[in-house]
Amino acid sequence: MGKTDWKAEAKALKKKVAKLREKVGEVVQDLPKVKAPNPVSPLAPAGGFPDLPVIDGVEFSAVAAGVRYANRTDVMLVRLAPGTAIAGAFTRSSTRAACVLDCQDKLASRVSAGAGAAIVVNSGNANAFTGKAGVASVKAVTGAVAQALDVPASRVFSSSTGVIGEPLPHDRIVASLDAAVDALDAGGIAMAARAIMTTDTFPKGASATVAGDGGPIRIAGIAKGSGMIAPDMATMLVYIFTDAKIGAPLLQKMLSRQVDDTFNAITVDSDTSTSDALIVAATGRSPAAEITARSAIARPFEAALRGVMLDLAQQVVRDGEGATKFVEVRVTSAASAEDAHKVAMSIANSPLVKTAIAGQDPNWGRIVAAVGKSGAKADRDRLSIRFGDILVAEKGWRAPDYREEDGAAYMKQPELIVSVDLGLGKGAKTVWTCDLTHRYIDINADYRS
Amino acid sequence: MGKTDWKAEAKALKKKVAKLREKVGEVVQDLPKVKAPNPVSPLAPAGGFPDLPVIDGVEFSAVAAGVRYANRTDVMLVRLAPGTAIAGAFTRSSTRAACVLDCQDKLASRVSAGAGAAIVVNSGNANAFTGKAGVASVKAVTGAVAQALDVPASRVFSSSTGVIGEPLPHDRIVASLDAAVDALDAGGIAMAARAIMTTDTFPKGASATVAGDGGPIRIAGIAKGSGMIAPDMATMLVYIFTDAKIGAPLLQKMLSRQVDDTFNAITVDSDTSTSDALIVAATGRSPAAEITARSAIARPFEAALRGVMLDLAQQVVRDGEGATKFVEVRVTSAASAEDAHKVAMSIANSPLVKTAIAGQDPNWGRIVAAVGKSGAKADRDRLSIRFGDILVAEKGWRAPDYREEDGAAYMKQPELIVSVDLGLGKGAKTVWTCDLTHRYIDINADYRS
Repeated sequence: MGKTDWKAEAKALKKKVAKLREKVGEVVQDLPKVKAPNPVSPLAPAGGFPDLPVIDGVEFSAVAAGVRYANRTDVMLVRLAPGTAIAGAFTRSSTRAACVLDCQDKLASRVSAGAGAAIVVNSGNANAFTGKAGVASVKAVTGAVAQALDVPASRVFSSSTGVIGEPLPHDRIVASLDAAVDALDAGGIAMAARAIMTTDTFPKGASATVAGDGGPIRIAGIAKGSGMIAPDMATMLVYIFTDAKIGAPLLQKMLSRQVDDTFNAITVDSDTSTSDALIVAATGRSPAAEITARSAIARPFEAALRGVMLDLAQQVVRDGEGATKFVEVRVTSAASAEDAHKVAMSIANSPLVKTAIAGQDPNWGRIVAAVGKSGAKADRDRLSIRFGDILVAEKGWRAPDYREEDGAAYMKQPELIVSVDLGLGKGAKTVWTCDLTHRYIDINADYRS
Repeated sequence: MGKTDWKAEAKALKKKVAKLREKVGEVVQDLPKVKAPNPVSPLAPAGGFPDLPVIDGVEFSAVAAGVRYANRTDVMLVRLAPGTAIAGAFTRSSTRAACVLDCQDKLASRVSAGAGAAIVVNSGNANAFTGKAGVASVKAVTGAVAQALDVPASRVFSSSTGVIGEPLPHDRIVASLDAAVDALDAGGIAMAARAIMTTDTFPKGASATVAGDGGPIRIAGIAKGSGMIAPDMATMLVYIFTDAKIGAPLLQKMLSRQVDDTFNAITVDSDTSTSDALIVAATGRSPAAEITARSAIARPFEAALRGVMLDLAQQVVRDGEGATKFVEVRVTSAASAEDAHKVAMSIANSPLVKTAIAGQDPNWGRIVAAVGKSGAKADRDRLSIRFGDILVAEKGWRAPDYREEDGAAYMKQPELIVSVDLGLGKGAKTVWTCDLTHRYIDINADYRS
């Protein structure tokens, strides 16, 4: 496989997109122009969008269908080669969107596993809480994709992200599909990552390569999300592609095993979305031997998959609405794993902890309070708290050597580690969050107006 | 009982306070001056602090002990006549403060019920997470009050509110007690309400009178609290006084019964404090006959008590940090009472709902999402949502007659009612909250600096 000239690819794609925009112009002209993008998060990974490997058997395109705004790509189409195994995890919201229910039904039925498959995603409209019309929209879009790509409709997975409760203009998406099919390109993943953004300030991508038996196995993933991020869901929108040869049941098992410590371990604002979806597609095109539960490569592959998942999850936190601090919350020695999770999330979701962090205030008292309200077993006099390596509190009180100025200096850093040891048992959990700032209010008090 | 000239009382008390301040001057002079007070919440009740009836058997004073700041009253002392029955409800935080544990122990032991009693409260320092030193501080303060007022130490209840994790300068409080005893006054409740304020922008009081058998029964209460307000606790700091003749067990039963739908039904920011306490003291000095479980007056008295509790609870929300909107969230037809509570609190605590309300955005999609993430049983297609009387959504979609401009006009009001009917069963719950604004961030990112 030769080295792709990404810059040239991107330029060509941009031209295609411009042409396609004209094609659907009569729809687009009525729409409001998209607002100026938010400034890129100060926590964005250095170096911009990473170079992702091409995954054999996967093609991407991104077009401007005019779902909500006139001047941005808002539909992503992914074609997956015949034989691709697909696994997924989704929001557990009881008011989840029609497209999420549709994906879950299709994955549960596991029909026509040998056929080709597709993923179609729009931003600008979540098609959530849109009643029967929402169900009809999903059918219309997935049906049209199935026809356009000649794959079974039962293998077309759709997601929608954006405003809740507005009817999805699915006719515009359907009208854009010819152009989207024309634009399909194995090197188009970066454009795809941009097409699914909403309030995101940077596109999110991650990759890994595992040395398989007979050749490399490649993994590349993209994600979107920066608000309405909380656990108790699969995640925001995440698509991970690999050329591994692996059966869907084993792929699903690995995905389910790893989702709790990655996407379910992040929180921006404790608000669970109605639309979150994580799909992993394995094309089987790698020259490496098949991965089975017993093959030596199974563990390294799962570890690499986990690495991509964690990287993308952390990028979502780094793009948390208004975030200026990336915070790792480590809880150890809890009475149980469940208690560790409760304490970690109680800290990570506490508005008082998050505003203190925004203000660079080493206000460890608020961490004590968050432990106290978590519902987990805690003994005030066994608790210890650290900011990075600085011991702040122990034995029910401020540590004797702790100096406030050390804590204050530590809090000025953009990346923080807050550790709480409960001194009770073996339960441990690490989660990631960001601070709560004025920009969060700006973004969310003004989202629709 | 003659009508008190409150204005004259207040003026006289102010002078006393000024003198007392000088008395403890050598301590006070080292302290930072208190910051300029926050502007009064736009949701504060019209007419300012209410005229509260004098409760026979209760005296108040407020002095400046210099707990944290130089120029404000920060200690409240309350003397309760012999025979006063006392009941309480407290935070359920597992990291609760030493004074809370002390109150709970004393109420559990019910010793010397016939003796006098006292309440002593300081602001400026929560004496929470202060280890053994914190326990010693509680002993020192309650012991000194017991001595000064000649009541058993087992009948002295203390609260501390303010910063967590700093040692309480209990010597300053003890040093201020002589002056506090001198200043005790049956008409001092308004000063007391001011002395316990921290980030509060207005003092909170409420009262009720019930026609008892043989004379009136009076109830007067005060409260403080505006941040770190959430359910799963008794409440912030609340002291309610009545001249009713009632045994402590019945008083406790009534209090416990009413706390769930009043103080446990409010939330400002989902953060439960380590120090919240609610104490009700009944002096028995009313000429009315004793209230027993079987007397006709029991229900009206409990209703009046509930009314005072709800009024104070709602005032706490009206003083929610940064609040510009007072929001009642009504959930009906849930599958169970527990589910109704989950849905109501999920909506009331959702940062996305609260920022939308701050932005006067009728973003009902976020309410759908909050229902979805609550963990309660919900059927998207049976759900209906109302803003005030405006039907916004029903049968899984926007209501056919709903117009966005009606919703937008409604949201401009300072007092809002958001109703969600789940269409499933008989569970119902109403809770109260406020919006999430820039001022919340200002106040909390800057609390200690």
